[in-house]
Amino acid sequence: MSPQPRTLSRFAQLRRIESSRLFQTVVIGIIILSALTIGAKTYDLPPLLESSLTVMDNAITVFFLIEILFRFAACQDKKRFLMDGWNLFDTLVVIGSLVPLDNSDAVLLGRLLRVFRVLRLVSVVPELRFLINSLLKAIPRMGYIALLMFIIFYIYAAMGSLFFASVDEELWGDVAIAMLTLFRVATFEDWTDVMYATMDQYPLSWVYYITFIFLTAFVFLNMMIGAILEVMGEEKNAREAQTAHDERDEIFKQLQSVQLKLDQLTEKMGDSKGD
Amino acid sequence: MSPQPRTLSRFAQLRRIESSRLFQTVVIGIIILSALTIGAKTYDLPPLLESSLTVMDNAITVFFLIEILFRFAACQDKKRFLMDGWNLFDTLVVIGSLVPLDNSDAVLLGRLLRVFRVLRLVSVVPELRFLINSLLKAIPRMGYIALLMFIIFYIYAAMGSLFFASVDEELWGDVAIAMLTLFRVATFEDWTDVMYATMDQYPLSWVYYITFIFLTAFVFLNMMIGAILEVMGEEKNAREAQTAHDERDEIFKQLQSVQLKLDQLTEKMGDSKGD
Amino acid sequence: MSPQPRTLSRFAQLRRIESSRLFQTVVIGIIILSALTIGAKTYDLPPLLESSLTVMDNAITVFFLIEILFRFAACQDKKRFLMDGWNLFDTLVVIGSLVPLDNSDAVLLGRLLRVFRVLRLVSVVPELRFLINSLLKAIPRMGYIALLMFIIFYIYAAMGSLFFASVDEELWGDVAIAMLTLFRVATFEDWTDVMYATMDQYPLSWVYYITFIFLTAFVFLNMMIGAILEVMGEEKNAREAQTAHDERDEIFKQLQSVQLKLDQLTEKMGDSKGD
Amino acid sequence: MSPQPRTLSRFAQLRRIESSRLFQTVVIGIIILSALTIGAKTYDLPPLLESSLTVMDNAITVFFLIEILFRFAACQDKKRFLMDGWNLFDTLVVIGSLVPLDNSDAVLLGRLLRVFRVLRLVSVVPELRFLINSLLKAIPRMGYIALLMFIIFYIYAAMGSLFFASVDEELWGDVAIAMLTLFRVATFEDWTDVMYATMDQYPLSWVYYITFIFLTAFVFLNMMIGAILEVMGEEKNAREAQTAHDERDEIFKQLQSVQLKLDQLTEKMGDSKGD
Repeated sequence: MSPQPRTLSRFAQLRRIESSRLFQTVVIGIIILSALTIGAKTYDLPPLLESSLTVMDNAITVFFLIEILFRFAACQDKKRFLMDGWNLFDTLVVIGSLVPLDNSDAVLLGRLLRVFRVLRLVSVVPELRFLINSLLKAIPRMGYIALLMFIIFYIYAAMGSLFFASVDEELWGDVAIAMLTLFRVATFEDWTDVMYATMDQYPLSWVYYITFIFLTAFVFLNMMIGAILEVMGEEKNAREAQTAHDERDEIFKQLQSVQLKLDQLTEKMGDSKGD
Repeated sequence: MSPQPRTLSRFAQLRRIESSRLFQTVVIGIIILSALTIGAKTYDLPPLLESSLTVMDNAITVFFLIEILFRFAACQDKKRFLMDGWNLFDTLVVIGSLVPLDNSDAVLLGRLLRVFRVLRLVSVVPELRFLINSLLKAIPRMGYIALLMFIIFYIYAAMGSLFFASVDEELWGDVAIAMLTLFRVATFEDWTDVMYATMDQYPLSWVYYITFIFLTAFVFLNMMIGAILEVMGEEKNAREAQTAHDERDEIFKQLQSVQLKLDQLTEKMGDSKGD
Repeated sequence: MSPQPRTLSRFAQLRRIESSRLFQTVVIGIIILSALTIGAKTYDLPPLLESSLTVMDNAITVFFLIEILFRFAACQDKKRFLMDGWNLFDTLVVIGSLVPLDNSDAVLLGRLLRVFRVLRLVSVVPELRFLINSLLKAIPRMGYIALLMFIIFYIYAAMGSLFFASVDEELWGDVAIAMLTLFRVATFEDWTDVMYATMDQYPLSWVYYITFIFLTAFVFLNMMIGAILEVMGEEKNAREAQTAHDERDEIFKQLQSVQLKLDQLTEKMGDSKGD
Repeated sequence: MSPQPRTLSRFAQLRRIESSRLFQTVVIGIIILSALTIGAKTYDLPPLLESSLTVMDNAITVFFLIEILFRFAACQDKKRFLMDGWNLFDTLVVIGSLVPLDNSDAVLLGRLLRVFRVLRLVSVVPELRFLINSLLKAIPRMGYIALLMFIIFYIYAAMGSLFFASVDEELWGDVAIAMLTLFRVATFEDWTDVMYATMDQYPLSWVYYITFIFLTAFVFLNMMIGAILEVMGEEKNAREAQTAHDERDEIFKQLQSVQLKLDQLTEKMGDSKGD
């Protein structure tokens, strides 16, 4: 039984280091350094600086490896550590950087993995992690609206590639390309060029574009309004439920006290009458 | 009297099949398959695949026909079935696919009708049907604002084709083309190209564009704010009316009980005095 | 004293005609006809149709003149009739159409005045008039924000024409042209073309554009949020003040009745004791 | 002790002049004149007007210097005057205009400083100063969202310059240029041109653009909703806390009065019984 307290205390010690301000600051600093290294590599640099950057890059990889092992050691519940999405992401990015790569395609992949290291900033700064979690929670809310949007895009894309494929193969060749073109129209990006081209052959094709723009804009607008209302409703319900109860509890308490006094008075009256 | 229960039970049986999870899933699956078929046909395919797609297309048409007949048979109130917009839409799309077509224009129309089959997804998935219904309800709310918007567009288009028709016949030729050009300006799509062209002849024509953009943006903004407020107001009224009454009913009940006790006390007092 | 009732009854008669559904519908119909005539004239028409349109145009002018005189006659308070902005606008447009015009510039002006007749639709349909009035009320709310926006535009335009006039005289020649260019940048219309041109000479000029875009977007966003909040606040205050008082008045009434009963009871007690 | 009242009265006298309507109007008038002078100088003017503008410019500088000295003299708490950001800004702009400049670069700087004089309008009109202060308060609220946005931009820019640098050195050369290109994509400015160029080499690169647009739009939308909710929450809390307390205090007061009367009644009963 004696070893357990010792392990616990060792855990507590590791935990204290892990959650110390200094440790957190060093980790954040190294991540920012890593981000700067990635950015610096996109510039044309003298060979000396380039090679020193590579050395630093490897040093950062080693640091990240040690940091993750340390955090794993500091965590008592190993299973929960592995189940946490952020930890898994961190581990994957670090292990990915360790795999030695030779051919050029793999080098590109390796550099891509290093880019994702910047995302570690999100997993380390609690405020950002909270923000991401709340953004993720907002996704299901938009599920059916997104499906409806997709159906609108699909139908218009199928119609578009049915009629306009002969006009411009590059824009309306098949349903996938047509959906990309429609996304472009939805962002108003040179959409009139697309329209004028098809209007030469189908003079009434402006109906297609105008209805599409109105439909998507209308659905999008209602989605936004819906999202605002839903979040607002949740928040207000939570807040109202609290404040209203707080104040009304006071009124109830007073009313109950009034009733009690009346009961006592009535009882006394009975006594007095019985006298 | 005996045949009616039997018919009822047969109806109930059909209804049970119709509303079963398996039936719904199969129908949704077939609709998605139909959508994929439509999408696949926009690609250049080998002849064998092309012809097998046509076979599948016909099979889907037959399936849809059977499904609608089945749903019609399962529905007790035949009249209401025919009055429902979604059912009418389904029937129309299916019957349209059945008409044999020969000349090329009609083939295009037939393929167009097949595209609309994807919309059947909306009529089958209840959540999407609910979403569409609530979107449709939002339309009248915007009626007069849309009319105002149209008047603004019409006046500016009439002015535009009055002054700028000589500058660019393609953009300002008549009032209809001018409205399309103004819609383009409202989406900010290369609107400066349009403006610079007219400014060569009418150096002050920027006033026309700037006032138009401000007017439409201002009306649109107020429409959006109005929509948010209206929906919010409705929702809140409904919610408030409920919660407020629930809590206040409690207070009322207690106050009435206090009054009752006081009345009894006063009565007793009278008795005691009368004693 | 006898003539007044008669005049009143004649007024009442005219008023009854003026506010009758038929009269309103005819006026709206004529306005729409007028709008269609204006639109039709922007097309190339055969001479016969063209001349018949001119005849109809004159007929509409005469109708409008009679309608205004009629409404003036039907109005008891002549002074208030002339003070009303909508009536003044109607009169101006109609009188403007009556002035005979010869030279081509004046013809253009005359046609422009006929375009504004479409706006009479707003002055005749009460819902549109209400909408316009509520939009006009929203303007002062945005006064100081608009001034701030103007200051931002002016400062950036002055800076722009100071630095970039040598790059492109057409876009940055003087402070007025520069403001137009900045408005274009604010609508994201080919703003990178403008930026890349100045970046050739001033490589850091992207700072100018990015800060400008962020400033205007930020101010605009806050203006919108502010507008939503303000309108919402007003509406809610009005509604809350009403509902809350209605329900609380009930509680007060009950509490006062409790107090009254207690007072009576205490008095009775005094009597009973005094007995 | 006698000199202090006199100084005080002199302060009061200066203060009265400073806060007088006339003084404020003159200062605002001079600032607007200064703004007009700056604007006028961007036009090609005849030499005479040009030189008279320069004279006026110097006169305005002198006026501003006197005004600031006057306001400094009128302010009792000299330290607080120097600590106020708006005063510091005013002083800096005026002193900057006084420094004699010879070489052309410095002349440009001098003219730039004169442009910033227009901002003095904000520091002088109280409504604008209030507006700016409330806008500044809105910034920290967006801190972490802005950081998240920056991380998204940085990661996509690093990826972009990794893959697309070979496609277009001008757009994806290094991480800074790539971020500018991504900002352009986020504003939908000719983003398809950028995309089509990279799709020639990487046919799947549309995934990069679509995910980027969705991510930024999604984060931006949620930021806006969050901002609306936060401001609304604050405002409502403040308002509710006030109105609710006002009305409930009345109910409490009445309830306490009921309790008091009951206590007195019970006491009397005791007396009456004791009698």
